[in-house]
Amino acid sequence: MIEKDIPFSTAEYERRLTKTRRAMEDAGIDVLFCTDPSNQNWLTAYDGWSFYVHQGVLVTRDGPPIWWGRYMDMMGGRRTCWMEDEHVLGYEDHYIQSTVRHPMQDLAARIRDMGLGGARIGVEMENYYYSAKAHAVLTAELPEAEFVDATALVNWQRLVKSDEEIGFMRRAARITDKVIETAIERAAPGVRKNDLVADVLHAGITGLGGDWGDYPAILPLTPSGADATAAHLTWDGKPMKAGEATFFELSGVYRRYHAPLSRTVFLGTPPDDMLRAEAAQIEGIDAGLEAARAGARTCDIANAFMGVLARHGIERSGRMGYPVGVSYPPDWGERTASIRSEDDTVLEPGMVFHFMPALWMDTWGLETTETILIKESGAAEPLCSQPRKLFVKD
Amino acid sequence: MIEKDIPFSTAEYERRLTKTRRAMEDAGIDVLFCTDPSNQNWLTAYDGWSFYVHQGVLVTRDGPPIWWGRYMDMMGGRRTCWMEDEHVLGYEDHYIQSTVRHPMQDLAARIRDMGLGGARIGVEMENYYYSAKAHAVLTAELPEAEFVDATALVNWQRLVKSDEEIGFMRRAARITDKVIETAIERAAPGVRKNDLVADVLHAGITGLGGDWGDYPAILPLTPSGADATAAHLTWDGKPMKAGEATFFELSGVYRRYHAPLSRTVFLGTPPDDMLRAEAAQIEGIDAGLEAARAGARTCDIANAFMGVLARHGIERSGRMGYPVGVSYPPDWGERTASIRSEDDTVLEPGMVFHFMPALWMDTWGLETTETILIKESGAAEPLCSQPRKLFVKD
Repeated sequence: MIEKDIPFSTAEYERRLTKTRRAMEDAGIDVLFCTDPSNQNWLTAYDGWSFYVHQGVLVTRDGPPIWWGRYMDMMGGRRTCWMEDEHVLGYEDHYIQSTVRHPMQDLAARIRDMGLGGARIGVEMENYYYSAKAHAVLTAELPEAEFVDATALVNWQRLVKSDEEIGFMRRAARITDKVIETAIERAAPGVRKNDLVADVLHAGITGLGGDWGDYPAILPLTPSGADATAAHLTWDGKPMKAGEATFFELSGVYRRYHAPLSRTVFLGTPPDDMLRAEAAQIEGIDAGLEAARAGARTCDIANAFMGVLARHGIERSGRMGYPVGVSYPPDWGERTASIRSEDDTVLEPGMVFHFMPALWMDTWGLETTETILIKESGAAEPLCSQPRKLFVKD
Repeated sequence: MIEKDIPFSTAEYERRLTKTRRAMEDAGIDVLFCTDPSNQNWLTAYDGWSFYVHQGVLVTRDGPPIWWGRYMDMMGGRRTCWMEDEHVLGYEDHYIQSTVRHPMQDLAARIRDMGLGGARIGVEMENYYYSAKAHAVLTAELPEAEFVDATALVNWQRLVKSDEEIGFMRRAARITDKVIETAIERAAPGVRKNDLVADVLHAGITGLGGDWGDYPAILPLTPSGADATAAHLTWDGKPMKAGEATFFELSGVYRRYHAPLSRTVFLGTPPDDMLRAEAAQIEGIDAGLEAARAGARTCDIANAFMGVLARHGIERSGRMGYPVGVSYPPDWGERTASIRSEDDTVLEPGMVFHFMPALWMDTWGLETTETILIKESGAAEPLCSQPRKLFVKD
């Protein structure tokens, strides 16, 4: 008998399944096939670095979900999923990266065997782990089925977190604090960026006390100087230099739950325009937190921030935040609501966003962000405890 | 003027483009759209953690390739790509995770503007970063175009490495040696797995001397005991125990080039069946290396290994290796040839494989692997220098 270490209570997984089934009914979906690893984990607790081959979770109108993947990963599924073994299925290895066979042939056969060959099948059309080819094969193999785009159907169910999940995110946030503190402390002229990143990852994965650290869905983003005008550069071996700002976009992770945070450090004396932008950014974040209340909308957060910045003569448009929670590479965002002026998702208690009003200017970047929890009443609560400022190290 | 740090020579990028164009001609492709981040890097040197939004490289019949992505990542593209700025294009942020707009609408418009709206367009149908939805939108937006499945077209061009690339892989292999040595050294009863992994990542990212370490495309796989019967579990916070085997599947990385290696450590006295399997595995690897010669085929390596194991009474089928080189998450394999009995790719000098004849048994796993270079003559050369054995720590 395998001793399993399932992260959440049975009631929590039942809650998730019930919510998902309600959304399936609303969309007229008989069977849902989830390829998003975060959705797989959220529904079944499956956890493994096996998402680089085809796998997924089938949810029908009743019974436990079914995890389906490569045979050798079925072994991992039987160790990590909350369901009994007969709900964890594996396909043969000769389907892997074959030019003559495709894993979706196996999945289609199983769906037919379940009597669902003519069902309305929901698939996540816009997902890293559901390729154009997978869709072409699955639809060709199930000509009687009707396919429905169920992109983000489960992601939307993840938007409001349970108390159990918020507990995990608070643990992640404590690890994030440690990680950011490590980065700020280590930053100094002459320090190679890769050495700093090594310490940052070490801090995150050792974790805090009994809370061991998991891997982040995005590896450290740590660009300096003009490189920080680009949002998503990782690191290299160059030494840090006086007279430059470096931003750190990092997350502690507790059992796949993230609480991302960014802070910027300047080595030396920051230029006046950066200090003015810092003041505007911090005032804008305060305004955003005040606007981030149950009953308000995501756009209200963005508009509050942009309003402050406009008063300071800085134009900032685009997306400035997204929900976070459980996640796998390559992204820690949930890909549903956005904090931006064209998004009007109504905020509810238990939602958690990475409020991310970074400023990428012509010659430098300034990232100061918060992971925020929407409360029953009052302003949003930042989950981390880092001073909200540009860190200056002379 | 941006000071760029392009990893390879101009001649090397020209070589790659010429090879790719030859393959495009053979396939009758006028314009190729590559979404695989490894292919993007290989063709243009683009490097950033931005593959979680739609982006890619367009290769036409002449001129430099075009990198296309999110506007804020265009900034990173202009810092990392070898091409001039006008070949690095960005789309507006309102396309990002929108329910009413899709980035492929922007790409389609650009292809039409290039006069290629009726061209034969190659797309990577089987890739993490080309979703079913992306394909649906792109084909709908370009009704005059003919779409051709160009999955792995560029990946196949990557199979034989240049001398410059082999130089990078040798540097990666030195880092791998350091990483594996760290794992073996740290393994002891009572050591929490996450603390060991923190040290392993630290060792890899600090790198060796001037060779700074980059992030691996697969994070450490380090399962112990019965968990090691599953191939792809990462880590948790449990202490290591006496009487258990733990395998480490790890890679050092030098500027996105990988040289993966696995070794297994047993804490205490290994059971007889594991020692017998170890002897068979090592003899089998020797036979595989001998078979891995220019002019032989990938299946010859697999058959040589399986032949030895069969003589020892162990059945091992399935895939036991794949080519490696430049890579991004979620996979460090190149997804072309496989070392397995049904694959007859002819080996050429300069090919590099992760020869991966792991044994996942009913109650334990034993991974001993090598990254091997096919030579002009003679047996393949393992790039790392770790003793090939089950490490036993009493």
